Amino acid sequence: MVTRTPGDVTAQLARFALSPGSSLPESARHAARRTIANCLGLMVGACRHPAYEIAYAATGADATPAQSTLIGHHEKASVTTTALLGGLAAHVEDFDDTHLRTVIHPGAPIVPAALAMAEYIGTTQDEFVEAVAYGSEVTLRIGLGLGHGHFDRGWHLTGTTGRFGAAIASGRLIGLSPEQMTVALGIAATEAAGLQEALGTMTKSLHLGKAAADGVEAALLASFGYSGPEQPIEGRRGLARTIAPEPDLEVICENLGVRWEIEANTFKPYACGIVSHPVIDAATALGAQLESQDVASVLVRTHPVVLDVMGVKEPTDGLQSKFSVYHCFAVGMLHGVGGPAQFSTRTARDPQVISLRKLVKVETDDSIAKDECYAVVEARDGRRLQHHVEHATASAANPMTDDQLIEKICLVAGPTLGADRAGQMAKAALALSGERNVSDLIAIACPSLTPSIESE
Amino acid sequence: MVTRTPGDVTAQLARFALSPGSSLPESARHAARRTIANCLGLMVGACRHPAYEIAYAATGADATPAQSTLIGHHEKASVTTTALLGGLAAHVEDFDDTHLRTVIHPGAPIVPAALAMAEYIGTTQDEFVEAVAYGSEVTLRIGLGLGHGHFDRGWHLTGTTGRFGAAIASGRLIGLSPEQMTVALGIAATEAAGLQEALGTMTKSLHLGKAAADGVEAALLASFGYSGPEQPIEGRRGLARTIAPEPDLEVICENLGVRWEIEANTFKPYACGIVSHPVIDAATALGAQLESQDVASVLVRTHPVVLDVMGVKEPTDGLQSKFSVYHCFAVGMLHGVGGPAQFSTRTARDPQVISLRKLVKVETDDSIAKDECYAVVEARDGRRLQHHVEHATASAANPMTDDQLIEKICLVAGPTLGADRAGQMAKAALALSGERNVSDLIAIACPSLTPSIESE
Repeated sequence: MVTRTPGDVTAQLARFALSPGSSLPESARHAARRTIANCLGLMVGACRHPAYEIAYAATGADATPAQSTLIGHHEKASVTTTALLGGLAAHVEDFDDTHLRTVIHPGAPIVPAALAMAEYIGTTQDEFVEAVAYGSEVTLRIGLGLGHGHFDRGWHLTGTTGRFGAAIASGRLIGLSPEQMTVALGIAATEAAGLQEALGTMTKSLHLGKAAADGVEAALLASFGYSGPEQPIEGRRGLARTIAPEPDLEVICENLGVRWEIEANTFKPYACGIVSHPVIDAATALGAQLESQDVASVLVRTHPVVLDVMGVKEPTDGLQSKFSVYHCFAVGMLHGVGGPAQFSTRTARDPQVISLRKLVKVETDDSIAKDECYAVVEARDGRRLQHHVEHATASAANPMTDDQLIEKICLVAGPTLGADRAGQMAKAALALSGERNVSDLIAIACPSLTPSIESE
Repeated sequence: MVTRTPGDVTAQLARFALSPGSSLPESARHAARRTIANCLGLMVGACRHPAYEIAYAATGADATPAQSTLIGHHEKASVTTTALLGGLAAHVEDFDDTHLRTVIHPGAPIVPAALAMAEYIGTTQDEFVEAVAYGSEVTLRIGLGLGHGHFDRGWHLTGTTGRFGAAIASGRLIGLSPEQMTVALGIAATEAAGLQEALGTMTKSLHLGKAAADGVEAALLASFGYSGPEQPIEGRRGLARTIAPEPDLEVICENLGVRWEIEANTFKPYACGIVSHPVIDAATALGAQLESQDVASVLVRTHPVVLDVMGVKEPTDGLQSKFSVYHCFAVGMLHGVGGPAQFSTRTARDPQVISLRKLVKVETDDSIAKDECYAVVEARDGRRLQHHVEHATASAANPMTDDQLIEKICLVAGPTLGADRAGQMAKAALALSGERNVSDLIAIACPSLTPSIESE
């Protein structure tokens, strides 16, 4: 990959992010709605997660000004605190959306930031959807520009690129000028951070919470007149050259506004790292043919990225199990599904899961696609079963339908809202449009605000 | 430099940071007091700087809980907001302390964080000084470990390493366990950020404000039970390998607690990037021998880092002028000093300064030390004057005395507090010790709290 040097990447992105809503095609608009629906479901589902409760206490959320609603609760907090807690909640179950080319999860940093700001200043549903669409597009474009070398170096891409989208979405909603938007992008660039070393700990979710909150703060600083660098991305000591070994600056703005990366955003059917989803598909298929106690050995062949991010051999809690391809195979074969329950601490310590996990070997091969895998099980009686997954469930080549997405949202938000209301919320998110206020959607997501809605 | 791999750098730092106060030698303790005094002077001096006012408004500081005092004001804000605004104020005039081996400014991210937390929980002056000493030491040690390659890649080291010291200082004050301290360091590592591209804009000061606030937040998250990676610095995808091309992990803990890097912290006599201080010394000496209108050309020879960070040829405002070695030479020769007035927008646009600036050429040479420079002036009448600065004023080989430091603090804090009270504050900071509360010091730094103190 050749490093090319267009000198106005940031200015181009700032102008693009302020395009009129009418420039957003319906396909990208609906992709944004799906991103919002999925993210909102996860925010509701994790609104009492231990990581959320700790962050709520540590940030003193209850003492901040009541500006926007904490999703899943009835209290309000400041826009930045709401964004922080929302970003964290959206990601903490590792069940969020994924743009496969970049392995970025645009929803978690961008939707909570945009929603908190949209509620605070009272924007329409259309404006909210557009803010998410433009914010996501900018984050994904920058992710493409930073390239695989950036990932290989150890960075968590949603951490490093998420602030841009959160800044763009908030900045668009509060009406920044192109110059102010450049400043907001400059602040986002200089705060870009997040290490893969944090995978398997609560700190990984904090990357996305901070990206959301920092993005909002960047937009606010810019709106009050803060100054920043003119070329924060493309400059000599800008983000691209500092953080990535082989950035490709030209790809960032290539066909901007024509090709929409957000349309390639996908939604996970399994509550763990997306790169191991083909393995769960294969394990599920093989589990239908053989009891786990009859397994003698398992050999899985995957793309190398699987071991890079999912290499934990003996996870001891639920969070670690989300980063264990061995655990993924075991629960796929034993349970035939991969919801939050399959990645709980209880399941991670289940003796049956542990003993199957130990039989799994993984080999990697560059020629295998990221959404593909091969699995071979040797049975104790000498039988040899194999399965090839060509495109994992909900991969780009095999995307979730809107109905499947509603089902997933009911699964994650149901325990908090009840399945009916979770479904209602999912449908409301997928239908966001027009001049109505975003508070209609927020009311459905927050149980105590409208106690009668369930019986409507 | 060889990358070595001690596997417990973070755990060692966490244990070190919790050493009893009695392990802190008087020399390091007094270095911490000097760091505090200098930083406090700058925080007072910049308490109405436009960057401060904008950040105050954008963060909604007035609506946060009243936990700790905004230095130079009588209002209070939350600990994290106070830390953010304090870190920003301490750095915005580019007049703060510098540890020359790493070019880190430990005061700005660490002192405001420690002071805000110390006031909030009511610690003694000794505990406050110890928190700053241990925090600074950890930041400087990590800076040494990241090495020059980290700087050369484009990172602003006080941004990337400042969070660690702020987390250590806050964590020590609130009594974290070693395990919790490791979590706080993990959060600091994964939020490490700051691009040199931001030099010459308000965004550079935000690096230090955010480092201070994020460090406080990291300590609070750890205290409430958040989880983080065990090897955030030394791990395979930890900070060192991700952010630096040739980290040296062994140097981080080498003679920890025996050799104190904070003792090598220096204080700037000039309100601009420290690497150009030898140039101002030389220009001042030459200005005493020749009128500027008689200058035909100037050739300055310096270490290459000077052009790397001070290469702005035609600064158009005060902030940019702090990053112009050409401007530094001009004001040194014309004014014979380098205070905030010499780096104001008014001076940056002064026609006399501009015309002298244009005559300056700079050559760099690896064999010239960072605190050294050679300058040659050709006069219109053919005369040739030269000057060699061996060790710049206030360099490590030529440090400021306590009295010189008090003078500097009076210069920066005098316009806000009056010179007498600024001197009183400087002396109180240099005498911090014992069981007295830190609020005594804060009262002197905040005009409206104790209106009668001036006449005492």
